[in-house]
Amino acid sequence: MACQSFNITNDKQYVAARIKRLRSLFKKFSITGYLIPRADAFGNEYVGEKDERLKYISGFSGSWGLACVYKTGADIFIDGRYELQIKAETDLSVFTPVPIAETRITDRFTKIFTAKSVIGYDPTLFTAREIKVYREATEKTGAKLVAIEENLIDVIRESAGETVAVTENPVIGHPETLAGRSSKDKIKEIAGVLKEKKADAAVITLPECVCWLLNIRGSDIPHTPFVNAYGILHADKSFNLFIREERLSADLQASLNKAGVHFNAPEIFPVALRNLSGKKVMCDPNGVPDFIYTALQKAKTEIIEATDPHLLPKAIKNDAEIAAAKECHKLDGVALVRFIAWLKANAAGGKLTEIACVKKLESFRKETGKLKDVSFDSIAGAGENGAIVHYRVTEATNRALKDGDLFLLDSGGQYPEGTTDVTRVFAIGTPTEEMKTRYTQVLKAHIAFATARFPTGKVTGAAIDAITRAPLWQAGIDFNHGTGHGVGAYLSVHEGPQNISARSTVKLQPGMFITNEPGYYKADAFGIRIENIMLVTPGRKTEKEEIETSGFEALTLCPYEKTLIQQALLTAAEIAYVNAYHRHVAESLAPLLGKFPSVEKFLQEACAAL
Amino acid sequence: MACQSFNITNDKQYVAARIKRLRSLFKKFSITGYLIPRADAFGNEYVGEKDERLKYISGFSGSWGLACVYKTGADIFIDGRYELQIKAETDLSVFTPVPIAETRITDRFTKIFTAKSVIGYDPTLFTAREIKVYREATEKTGAKLVAIEENLIDVIRESAGETVAVTENPVIGHPETLAGRSSKDKIKEIAGVLKEKKADAAVITLPECVCWLLNIRGSDIPHTPFVNAYGILHADKSFNLFIREERLSADLQASLNKAGVHFNAPEIFPVALRNLSGKKVMCDPNGVPDFIYTALQKAKTEIIEATDPHLLPKAIKNDAEIAAAKECHKLDGVALVRFIAWLKANAAGGKLTEIACVKKLESFRKETGKLKDVSFDSIAGAGENGAIVHYRVTEATNRALKDGDLFLLDSGGQYPEGTTDVTRVFAIGTPTEEMKTRYTQVLKAHIAFATARFPTGKVTGAAIDAITRAPLWQAGIDFNHGTGHGVGAYLSVHEGPQNISARSTVKLQPGMFITNEPGYYKADAFGIRIENIMLVTPGRKTEKEEIETSGFEALTLCPYEKTLIQQALLTAAEIAYVNAYHRHVAESLAPLLGKFPSVEKFLQEACAAL
Repeated sequence: MACQSFNITNDKQYVAARIKRLRSLFKKFSITGYLIPRADAFGNEYVGEKDERLKYISGFSGSWGLACVYKTGADIFIDGRYELQIKAETDLSVFTPVPIAETRITDRFTKIFTAKSVIGYDPTLFTAREIKVYREATEKTGAKLVAIEENLIDVIRESAGETVAVTENPVIGHPETLAGRSSKDKIKEIAGVLKEKKADAAVITLPECVCWLLNIRGSDIPHTPFVNAYGILHADKSFNLFIREERLSADLQASLNKAGVHFNAPEIFPVALRNLSGKKVMCDPNGVPDFIYTALQKAKTEIIEATDPHLLPKAIKNDAEIAAAKECHKLDGVALVRFIAWLKANAAGGKLTEIACVKKLESFRKETGKLKDVSFDSIAGAGENGAIVHYRVTEATNRALKDGDLFLLDSGGQYPEGTTDVTRVFAIGTPTEEMKTRYTQVLKAHIAFATARFPTGKVTGAAIDAITRAPLWQAGIDFNHGTGHGVGAYLSVHEGPQNISARSTVKLQPGMFITNEPGYYKADAFGIRIENIMLVTPGRKTEKEEIETSGFEALTLCPYEKTLIQQALLTAAEIAYVNAYHRHVAESLAPLLGKFPSVEKFLQEACAAL
Repeated sequence: MACQSFNITNDKQYVAARIKRLRSLFKKFSITGYLIPRADAFGNEYVGEKDERLKYISGFSGSWGLACVYKTGADIFIDGRYELQIKAETDLSVFTPVPIAETRITDRFTKIFTAKSVIGYDPTLFTAREIKVYREATEKTGAKLVAIEENLIDVIRESAGETVAVTENPVIGHPETLAGRSSKDKIKEIAGVLKEKKADAAVITLPECVCWLLNIRGSDIPHTPFVNAYGILHADKSFNLFIREERLSADLQASLNKAGVHFNAPEIFPVALRNLSGKKVMCDPNGVPDFIYTALQKAKTEIIEATDPHLLPKAIKNDAEIAAAKECHKLDGVALVRFIAWLKANAAGGKLTEIACVKKLESFRKETGKLKDVSFDSIAGAGENGAIVHYRVTEATNRALKDGDLFLLDSGGQYPEGTTDVTRVFAIGTPTEEMKTRYTQVLKAHIAFATARFPTGKVTGAAIDAITRAPLWQAGIDFNHGTGHGVGAYLSVHEGPQNISARSTVKLQPGMFITNEPGYYKADAFGIRIENIMLVTPGRKTEKEEIETSGFEALTLCPYEKTLIQQALLTAAEIAYVNAYHRHVAESLAPLLGKFPSVEKFLQEACAAL
């Protein structure tokens, strides 16, 4: 998946009234302005309805944004993806959109704030690092930035009777057969890192780290099996999880107890932070909410700033996680091939729509019997919609698939065995030569990634980014998004620390999962992206080789669109890659299609050698 | 050129006695230790004999090193290139080699120094940044780092009657026809940068910047046409050059006067720094010697730290510089082809040596009638010597070229029209299949660089580094040096800010010169490197292309070694590149070989299509 959500909200009409009510609170809280981010207290990419406060106050539903409402005006900071969407969703008589590519947030603050400004914020919704940066800019003008414990959006929402409850769903155990390691073993490893760094404890606020460490999963936010709960890991290998105990079964509680996990009510968390007084505490200012950092400072802990120590061990999947991912990609592959066969049989005549396709694919995924959720809102763009990189289909934009269209479909599923994310492009009717040329050029880039080799453990995603883009640059084209992102093991579909871009700094290690998704977008015409999840393979050195090199193995099992391939543009090695991949797809999926003989027939044709 | 010099010195025998005399000065200067770098006061890569103080005190002749002599011991810091050489050149009963890859200088300081240590250094020989870093480490231990105006190595050298005079050779004007721009015009541009940054003046200490800005050249150091002189540029477009006037002809003085240049004796420089009191002064702490930074602080100037503003304009060559470079590469190409023809005719029988080849090639370069100097000490390694990346032939290591050898020759010339740097590998007698395979793999990497295209002005050398190494990684091999470095226009053969490596941060711009020099080294057997200087071409966008892309044009004119190419390993596109390059070499050089018909015949054969 390359991007973010786009659903026209119906909050626009209420924006002016809600802003008025927000401003009416300023006097009581002794402030002249208030910051509203699109964020929850856990740094999640997807947030629950209660945390959609930016949407509530501004109408804007993008995945990143920051509103600053002051007495006589209101700014909303957005990034380049949302310059059209902001106009559709927000009341522009109230909000001034400020694109951050043109104006830095801190520069705007410096310009707008005066010595009399007192700007409030909710310290659970900003990281310590964000507040540090904002505070420096604010104080240049003599203004003050003040943390307010009550969230003012929640206050006006409650007074209007529009309160939304926090989602706190049951927590389930993630089986050790899938996780590959016991929670006890993981805790031992990370506690070892604490000892190395001479830390007594670490505050862990990222749900992906808590879930990975404890082998638990939940459903507190959409599309991602996260449990929203903070933890404190101690160097003595004990762990405090701040959660309502009733969310876990007695069995799960007992097994976590054995791993050294103690349960405390979330209300106890501030007390637990105070109890760290005098201790050395590791935390990541780029991830930890401001209120925690402040509490640690007040408690006179010695803060050791460091990247969250779970990130790298979590990113490097073990054999069980790799085996499970291969299994779930077979399930997902069956759903994909059933969908493509259905699409090819029904696309003629313009009766299918983007939404119908999304629903159909989801239904095939559900029929695997294993799907927990889709891993993100599908991107299903036909024709010109495919050229909008962050397009999400809505009732308002829903478009029929017409003859001569390319149809881009980027989707994924969450299965206990793993997380999938795949993009394919389909020709509806007869494609133009231009479409075929561009598809083949993108395929060459995708193959360059898939067949790359590099010194094991010594190369960052920046090298793979250049190798992937090189064939597109040769053709005088490029794409304006990352080439790949890490993927979790039944966790987040966007997972760090590794990625594939010119700015990558983390070295690729065997066992990492990473997407391979070059693209091409022709505005107002069509979009192309070809995406597989890749496994970084172990180092190998053959007889004539002198260094250990790794490469990639595709986990995704789904045929490319042969009708869009111009063979003359491919080298012999590239054709060999496509044929080998298709053979692998057919061999992996055919045995699972016994109940669907026509789909199997379609698969064999789709995978026949070029 | 990939590296550095290796000449066994004869100073080793004197090391113990010289160290004793150095220590005898400690009391007078109230110090307990003294730092001796391999550096001059201008940050030059090549330094004059007077500045070879590290060699004088330690015997070590590497191009980088730092000695720290204290009362009871002496450390010499070296990098990975010199771990063998240090043993050959230095008296190890006196010096402890400290490889910086294993022990950071600052860590060693922290370990060795105590609260009683007072370490002296010459503030003209360290940059402000170096001293800042060393001082922080030193002060952690309670020790002191003190600048001493007199250089203690010069003191003991003088007392022994071994004084070496500073080289101050005549300064000549670099014609505007070659420079492409008047000095006045360049001064106007850089003064404009000063105004933009709100600086009143800039202190310019890098000879490459002074020479470029004023269109002057000299011969104060080996192999590089530098004038060692400081300058101060003022925002009002006047320029003070601190140099003995008699070094410039009256005509050159007059023409520089017209461009706004005033001449001051070098002794006046400290006064001029004091006169900047209260002004805003731009300087680059990574380049400017410590004593200048300290003097500016004492004068209470407001220091604006910034990268030297000349570097980028100097790196982007103008049309006249490009045209001149193409001319000088023709001259150099003639010398190279005459040499190769001679080598091929005389190599059999093992009578030629590395030194004989270096001398012969230099004689052909001299016969162009234009050569000012070689641009660095040639690297001429036959057989196993070729595998030593930083090898420089000496009488002691000189080796005959034997049947079955590969012979690696990396050399260059300084011509008024430009600076050359080229590496070719020759098969002496019959090469093995392994040699041919490795040569062809390196050639594939060289071609990947040469044929790369990339978004104009948006990509750093890191992308080109990955694209170049990709074919080697596919073969399970790699090389342990940079892929390319910038080259000056009759200036330094190593010129920034651009380079080609995984750590490159400067974007490649049309007009830059950069070497393309992948390699392969098999220890104790042979070395391969294929190097051309490349010009970054202007952006172009053809009809079907959507973004402006640049590529590279080879300036170097010299055939590859066809007997080492395994055609079966090359793609059709790679063969087409080799044939096109060879056609261009033949067409460029043949018209200049009228006097040498046998060489022309050889050229045509060497350049015949694969």
